[in-house]
Amino acid sequence: MSVASLKGRDLLSMADLNPAELQELLALAADLKSGKAQPTCKNKVLGLVFSKASTRTRVSFSVAMCHLGGQVLDLNAGVTQVGRGEPTVDTARVLDRYLDVLAIRTFEQSELETFAHFAKIPVINALTDLEHPCQVLADLQTVQEEFGTLAGLTLTYVGDGNNMANSILLGCALAGMHVRIACPDGYAPDASIIEKTQAIAAEKTEVLITADPALAAKGAQVLYTDVWASMGQESEAESRTPLFQPYQINDQLLSLADPNAIVLHCLPAHRGEEITESVLEGKQSRVWDEAENRLHAQKALLVSVLGAD
Amino acid sequence: MSVASLKGRDLLSMADLNPAELQELLALAADLKSGKAQPTCKNKVLGLVFSKASTRTRVSFSVAMCHLGGQVLDLNAGVTQVGRGEPTVDTARVLDRYLDVLAIRTFEQSELETFAHFAKIPVINALTDLEHPCQVLADLQTVQEEFGTLAGLTLTYVGDGNNMANSILLGCALAGMHVRIACPDGYAPDASIIEKTQAIAAEKTEVLITADPALAAKGAQVLYTDVWASMGQESEAESRTPLFQPYQINDQLLSLADPNAIVLHCLPAHRGEEITESVLEGKQSRVWDEAENRLHAQKALLVSVLGAD
Amino acid sequence: MSVASLKGRDLLSMADLNPAELQELLALAADLKSGKAQPTCKNKVLGLVFSKASTRTRVSFSVAMCHLGGQVLDLNAGVTQVGRGEPTVDTARVLDRYLDVLAIRTFEQSELETFAHFAKIPVINALTDLEHPCQVLADLQTVQEEFGTLAGLTLTYVGDGNNMANSILLGCALAGMHVRIACPDGYAPDASIIEKTQAIAAEKTEVLITADPALAAKGAQVLYTDVWASMGQESEAESRTPLFQPYQINDQLLSLADPNAIVLHCLPAHRGEEITESVLEGKQSRVWDEAENRLHAQKALLVSVLGAD
Repeated sequence: MSVASLKGRDLLSMADLNPAELQELLALAADLKSGKAQPTCKNKVLGLVFSKASTRTRVSFSVAMCHLGGQVLDLNAGVTQVGRGEPTVDTARVLDRYLDVLAIRTFEQSELETFAHFAKIPVINALTDLEHPCQVLADLQTVQEEFGTLAGLTLTYVGDGNNMANSILLGCALAGMHVRIACPDGYAPDASIIEKTQAIAAEKTEVLITADPALAAKGAQVLYTDVWASMGQESEAESRTPLFQPYQINDQLLSLADPNAIVLHCLPAHRGEEITESVLEGKQSRVWDEAENRLHAQKALLVSVLGAD
Repeated sequence: MSVASLKGRDLLSMADLNPAELQELLALAADLKSGKAQPTCKNKVLGLVFSKASTRTRVSFSVAMCHLGGQVLDLNAGVTQVGRGEPTVDTARVLDRYLDVLAIRTFEQSELETFAHFAKIPVINALTDLEHPCQVLADLQTVQEEFGTLAGLTLTYVGDGNNMANSILLGCALAGMHVRIACPDGYAPDASIIEKTQAIAAEKTEVLITADPALAAKGAQVLYTDVWASMGQESEAESRTPLFQPYQINDQLLSLADPNAIVLHCLPAHRGEEITESVLEGKQSRVWDEAENRLHAQKALLVSVLGAD
Repeated sequence: MSVASLKGRDLLSMADLNPAELQELLALAADLKSGKAQPTCKNKVLGLVFSKASTRTRVSFSVAMCHLGGQVLDLNAGVTQVGRGEPTVDTARVLDRYLDVLAIRTFEQSELETFAHFAKIPVINALTDLEHPCQVLADLQTVQEEFGTLAGLTLTYVGDGNNMANSILLGCALAGMHVRIACPDGYAPDASIIEKTQAIAAEKTEVLITADPALAAKGAQVLYTDVWASMGQESEAESRTPLFQPYQINDQLLSLADPNAIVLHCLPAHRGEEITESVLEGKQSRVWDEAENRLHAQKALLVSVLGAD
């Protein structure tokens, strides 16, 4: 009732998983959702060290631990010494002695890596400026629910080449999917992530980075977007709007995709900006199922890194 | 070990209960307090979405869920995207996918109703500007403990015709009690609540709204008051004081009531304002039992809307 | 699986324990750490009323309760009416009705004592300006792990004669240890605590207060320090530095101690101030074990004041 090879391991990047582990995790997530799998991690404690606001991530992790018979501790900067300037290497070593697993939401990937290096317990990336692997696990679960498979499908992400785009690139390549990113010049995903993705895809699946949203959307089974200005970039929102307008998911862009295409968004959504009301609330939208799958996908991850009782 | 007809339902207003349901809830609350009933709701999660400070409500809900074998998640604006302007309709639909029940403390009753409309799980009013039904459940439990019954007793509320007054009106009428509200001109309870109360009372029990505290207190079995300036009205406190002074519960007002009368206050109490030290700490005060009953009454409500295991 | 004589009692000061109770608590803490003792306090709730930031105390208490099958509620001023000026006597009486045990971190010892007086449930000092007994329980557990015994050993604390110094004085005397405090003139521990310590030591063990760190360190089995400016004293940090510099634990001071001496620090540590990097990270440092022991020592305390199931 867990992915045995993940026991005790960190998940800092999608690239920490191999294709078989990803497939097993998604299968476990589906079994957890259906109730077929009911593992427990009794009295285990997950610490959330979050330097940014969070609804879905925080709640889904907390409910997942509760269902497993464990608990969650919120360790945001406001209530801990972390906010008083204690070095990460000390905080990590202390928390390691109390907790069973950590989920960290922070800015720099390197801060996450320092935590993971000094804490022997499993550390999970709950969003950094570079990646958001937990979201992509839920996304892939949602796509698999819809189409019964992942390999050979095309997922197109339009908008800002941010942490979501980065983890989507890696996740799709690992899942055997074709992946296309359409973003304005200067807003492409991280170059080293693109390289890693191409290495995983190994010319067997498509990896396309383009400035042309219509080209990217054409025939895709999944259209995906995210807010144009992420947390911490709110001041850029106004200047970004005209640049990103052509990357909006609206009825016109959706009409270019596969007729059975579904639309994903990691939320919160800004209607009229990166996605229109008609698409977000339309019959091809799967955003609420996608949000729910955070719970199941992360529960699969937690039970795997902790090991079931 | 639960009120079956409440399973899956919301409690947005006292008027959402019928007299039989109210009676059953109070009986269950008493059994929970005595230990006769020990139902469980294992691994169920209650979300608290609180836009205002809270001690009693937050702690009593949290302890209730713990005793039932479940857990509570604090979802105040500071730590969620709710604070970043995500529309309520989106937040409600997402939380619905993770949680089993929601308790919401907010300003507008309409905000609560939007939440309840978009979340299919049970939603509980944990205080709005219009009503505070959870407090009234605890109040009625306290009165019933004292007198063994509710029907035919007279409860007199003196002070501000606020959310407490509104829920007290409805709750007393549903319980077959006579209810009198004494408040300064211009501070009467909500007009539509008074109408609903009169419809429930159907001229079989008294519903009196008056500016005369002595008239209202005369012969009553319960005297009740609340702070003169509720949360958000702190700036009005000074101007309200002279106007509300005649509505203070003091030894003189208490002497007009039934000799066996008890005094309730939903707390926090401001000694020397709406209630004197001698009454608050006197032998007719039941305010600490009343506070404790928040735990038992809300546990009865939770187990009923969730259904016991 | 608990120290029976502590059931229902408060721990406001180290002096609330007698030597036998201290010894039994430490033995239980060791059994909890090894897994030999696995008591439960199912569905019990610990409330944390913290007016100051906290990592180790908050996390270790929370994880302890989780392991025992109970839960923790964070009741910091920001989310409770405590922050809105409700008198402590009212808050204490209300929380007493909901919770099973309270841990309080505040400024004045008298505030803690008021809480304890009005709440009938056990109240634990989770740090005041006068004492920090929970830390000392973990410290003594760490020393006992190292040396197999406590009686007859010498513990030397160098630095600010603060709440740590106070509780160390009492704790060492109760444990039959010699205790030396080296601090600048004007920064001695509390006079009444010194008196109590001397009464406990009863001239059978050494109690030394000196301004000479070398004298104090000589031959000691344990060197201990804390930050020079505690929470709330940050503005004094600069002026204190030259005064406290001679009280730094560095390789030179450590060379005066017993060759097998260990170094403790209650954390967070300020490298280059009260302790050097080389000592903190050196092979005589036990600070991470000491931090971990907060969990075990407090679990021993909780299970004893609550009573095991």
